[in-house]
Amino acid sequence: MRNFRGASIRGSTFHLHSAFRTPHSALLMSVQAIAWSPSGAVRIIDQRALPEARIERDLESAEAVADAIRTLQVRGAPLIGIAAAMGLVAATRGQRGASREAFLARLAQLAPLLANTRPTAVNLRWALDRMARAAAATPGEGAALWERLQAEATAIWEEDRAMCRRIGEAGLPLVPDGATVLTHCNAGALATGGIGTALAPIYLAHDAGRRVHVLVDETRPVLQGARLTAWELTHAGVPCTVIADSAAGALMRQAQVDLVLVGADRIAANGDFANKIGTYALAVLARHHGVPFYCAAPSSTIDPALADGDGIPIEQRAPEEVKTVAGRPVAPAAAAALNPAFDVTPARYVTGYLTDRGLRKPPFADGGGGEGDRA
Amino acid sequence: MRNFRGASIRGSTFHLHSAFRTPHSALLMSVQAIAWSPSGAVRIIDQRALPEARIERDLESAEAVADAIRTLQVRGAPLIGIAAAMGLVAATRGQRGASREAFLARLAQLAPLLANTRPTAVNLRWALDRMARAAAATPGEGAALWERLQAEATAIWEEDRAMCRRIGEAGLPLVPDGATVLTHCNAGALATGGIGTALAPIYLAHDAGRRVHVLVDETRPVLQGARLTAWELTHAGVPCTVIADSAAGALMRQAQVDLVLVGADRIAANGDFANKIGTYALAVLARHHGVPFYCAAPSSTIDPALADGDGIPIEQRAPEEVKTVAGRPVAPAAAAALNPAFDVTPARYVTGYLTDRGLRKPPFADGGGGEGDRA
Repeated sequence: MRNFRGASIRGSTFHLHSAFRTPHSALLMSVQAIAWSPSGAVRIIDQRALPEARIERDLESAEAVADAIRTLQVRGAPLIGIAAAMGLVAATRGQRGASREAFLARLAQLAPLLANTRPTAVNLRWALDRMARAAAATPGEGAALWERLQAEATAIWEEDRAMCRRIGEAGLPLVPDGATVLTHCNAGALATGGIGTALAPIYLAHDAGRRVHVLVDETRPVLQGARLTAWELTHAGVPCTVIADSAAGALMRQAQVDLVLVGADRIAANGDFANKIGTYALAVLARHHGVPFYCAAPSSTIDPALADGDGIPIEQRAPEEVKTVAGRPVAPAAAAALNPAFDVTPARYVTGYLTDRGLRKPPFADGGGGEGDRA
Repeated sequence: MRNFRGASIRGSTFHLHSAFRTPHSALLMSVQAIAWSPSGAVRIIDQRALPEARIERDLESAEAVADAIRTLQVRGAPLIGIAAAMGLVAATRGQRGASREAFLARLAQLAPLLANTRPTAVNLRWALDRMARAAAATPGEGAALWERLQAEATAIWEEDRAMCRRIGEAGLPLVPDGATVLTHCNAGALATGGIGTALAPIYLAHDAGRRVHVLVDETRPVLQGARLTAWELTHAGVPCTVIADSAAGALMRQAQVDLVLVGADRIAANGDFANKIGTYALAVLARHHGVPFYCAAPSSTIDPALADGDGIPIEQRAPEEVKTVAGRPVAPAAAAALNPAFDVTPARYVTGYLTDRGLRKPPFADGGGGEGDRA
């Protein structure tokens, strides 16, 4: 996999079609969604502009990172956890000369700003809690605490990258040569620090020389499937076909789907999980047609404090996301719209959970659990 | 219902919000999707421009009508049947001085042009066959044949309007006070010559003073739900809420849907039916959640020559409908897209069929069957 300091994140040009010209490794081609800028800011790809434009932004403050998370410039449960952790580091660069008390007070101010951006994904809170614990456990003044935060954020990111690969390895046996995999939203490189969660087994299978075809739900209203998943798959040279979300059922009826792989924003102890709106319908359709349905997520997505999915808060986003596309109205101004960003899929619909600890079944007593927690 | 010569079709201004200011009848407020122009052309609302603009077009030739059908300026299974019949009349205005043989020869040239625009809806072929039979059965030269065609096209339209009302009456008992009805695509006034098929029971219930709330699937890729159904419902003062197609399953799980009402483009003898892509998934979800699922269509939608849904041709439309919205790309140029315009829902998922002959169950031995056929 390309190092984050490589050309894929730094370069302002992006050769999409080159993926089809030369032999390549899907993993080498996968994009890096986040990095440190040379000055220590959080460098992101503004995912709102994809696939039309590849715009990088350097976020200098917690406010800027919070805004980027809220407006979906950076999204995906694992990635927003990483972005929030890195955002704390970038935002406290100026506090390195502060006293321990002042530094911790500043940290306590900034964390809620980042935590309150999006309610459903638990990785965000998990990452911020981990950062706060790391600071509290470190002796010394501002400079020492900041160094520790920087190391912790980098560790969260690097662990996520490693977890992505392990999720991919756990799912690799599910993706034989010739498989057609349906996925929803974007649970790929653009949603994580590495090669993604749901897309990780696909990248590894493609890299192993297996022919894999991905059916990509476009994923209205924000179109993360059409805009982001199709973009990163074509970039990596993985054959994919975009479909309207509502076509998935008919394709399953025609036996054109071998496997459904989706990500997760929060997994309750009993295995119920929240993911992008539409995931639940896919799960019901998969069950109805006998298609295996897997949820792929790092352990940081498990929230053992939640007994079941009923306790997962569902973010309601602005009706305008449904009523407009690319700024153009697609519904009458007088019509109401409902825009739940997520739904909850009960565990009984899930064939298995692909995690960094292998293929698992609930109940999940553990949560959090990057390498740092297990060390 | 407003006469087609009334202001609703002629006026260039359109007072959407007035529906909320004054007491009104939903039926009085319902739009007229088609009319004769003063010069005898086919006057349509260009449905591609809705809801942003209400543009009327006068179609003078069979080519113009065929193009309007192909490009979805005019759509909806019953309406394209009416438009094709009226198009034959408009296109043969110049042949009134022709001999019988020349007139019939011209008719035989024009009909396939109109028939080959869209493969799935059977109403189109049904209407054209009926027009051809009417001409063949009429004695005399061009002038007499043309008069007969004009009368036949007007009859097809008026019968459709009457059938819409009878479908509404058949469905009215299913829509009690306080009901929330989910619908897909547009099977309303904009899809028919009257008050619609799936929306007809809703209009009648609203008119009877019942509180009805309509959940409108936006219906990607062409967004007929968000653009057309929400437009005509708000115009008529019927409360509605637009949702992403993928949200329907989660709303059913939350018991927020009392009833699903959809239209049909072709119904096989055994009750299997083709309708807008996504209908099948809705039917499976409705069955899974115990939500009644009804198909509403005029008898002209029944194709008794087809034993079951496997024989229904499914129109594959251009991938660009999925890959772009309002001209803006929403998927990478290199990505493929699949765009089946329809899917087939097996009869076993259907609670009942609302037709102009009441609430029915298959098998359907009859087809065609406006009032003209029964007379």
